[in-house]
Amino acid sequence: MNFLPHLEAICSQVEGALACCVMGTNGLPVEQHRVARGDIDLEGLWVEYSSLFGQIERAGEAMHGGGLTELAIHTDRVTTLVRIVTPEYFLALALAPDGNVGKGRFALRVTAPRLLSELA
Amino acid sequence: MNFLPHLEAICSQVEGALACCVMGTNGLPVEQHRVARGDIDLEGLWVEYSSLFGQIERAGEAMHGGGLTELAIHTDRVTTLVRIVTPEYFLALALAPDGNVGKGRFALRVTAPRLLSELA
Repeated sequence: MNFLPHLEAICSQVEGALACCVMGTNGLPVEQHRVARGDIDLEGLWVEYSSLFGQIERAGEAMHGGGLTELAIHTDRVTTLVRIVTPEYFLALALAPDGNVGKGRFALRVTAPRLLSELA
Repeated sequence: MNFLPHLEAICSQVEGALACCVMGTNGLPVEQHRVARGDIDLEGLWVEYSSLFGQIERAGEAMHGGGLTELAIHTDRVTTLVRIVTPEYFLALALAPDGNVGKGRFALRVTAPRLLSELA
C-alpha cells in the first residue's frame, strides 16, 4: 500500500496544489503529501469535512439525488476538492484559492480508479 | 425584489442547468426558477445542503481556513453549485451530472454581486 507516488503526481500536475491525501470516510488519515506549509490545519479540515459525507448521502437518498461522488468546498483561504473512492476511502486535494479547480477535479477523477486495487 | 430574471439568465447560460434559486442560509426559499421537471426533490436538497454551511464555517474558523464562499456537491444524479451571497442568502444552481460546472461557477460568481442591492 504505497499511495505517496499518486499523491505527489496529483500535486505536481495541479497549479496551486497545497497538499493531497487519502483518508478514511470515518476521518482516519491514511497517507498525505504536503507541498506547502502554512497556518491552515488542512488535516483538521479534512476530518471535519469527512463528517459531512453522511449528511449529504442521507439527503441524496431522501431526495432521489443519488450517492455522493465529489465535493468542492471553497473558503477564503483554501479550496478543498474531494473525490469519493470507495464507501470507506476518499481522496482530497487542497488548493490555493486561485488554484486550478478543473485540473484538480480531473487529476482526482483519473487517480481514484488507480487506488482501488490497493484499497480493496 | 425580483430575482427571477437573474435566475432565468443563469439557467439559459449554463449547459445542463435544471434549476436555480435564491434561498436563505436558514433554509427558507426566496425564489426559484426550474427548467426541467424530474423526480429529484431539488428544493429539499437545497434545504439539506444549507444545513451544512454552519459546520463548514465553524471548521474554517477553527482550522484557519476562513469563511465559506462556494460549495459544489456532486451526486450520481445532480450537481449542485452554491455561491454564498451574504451571510443570510445564497444562490444555488442544479445541473445535470454532465452539466458545465465551470460556466455554472462563473455565472453564479458574476450574478451574486448584482443581487446584493436587492438583498441588503
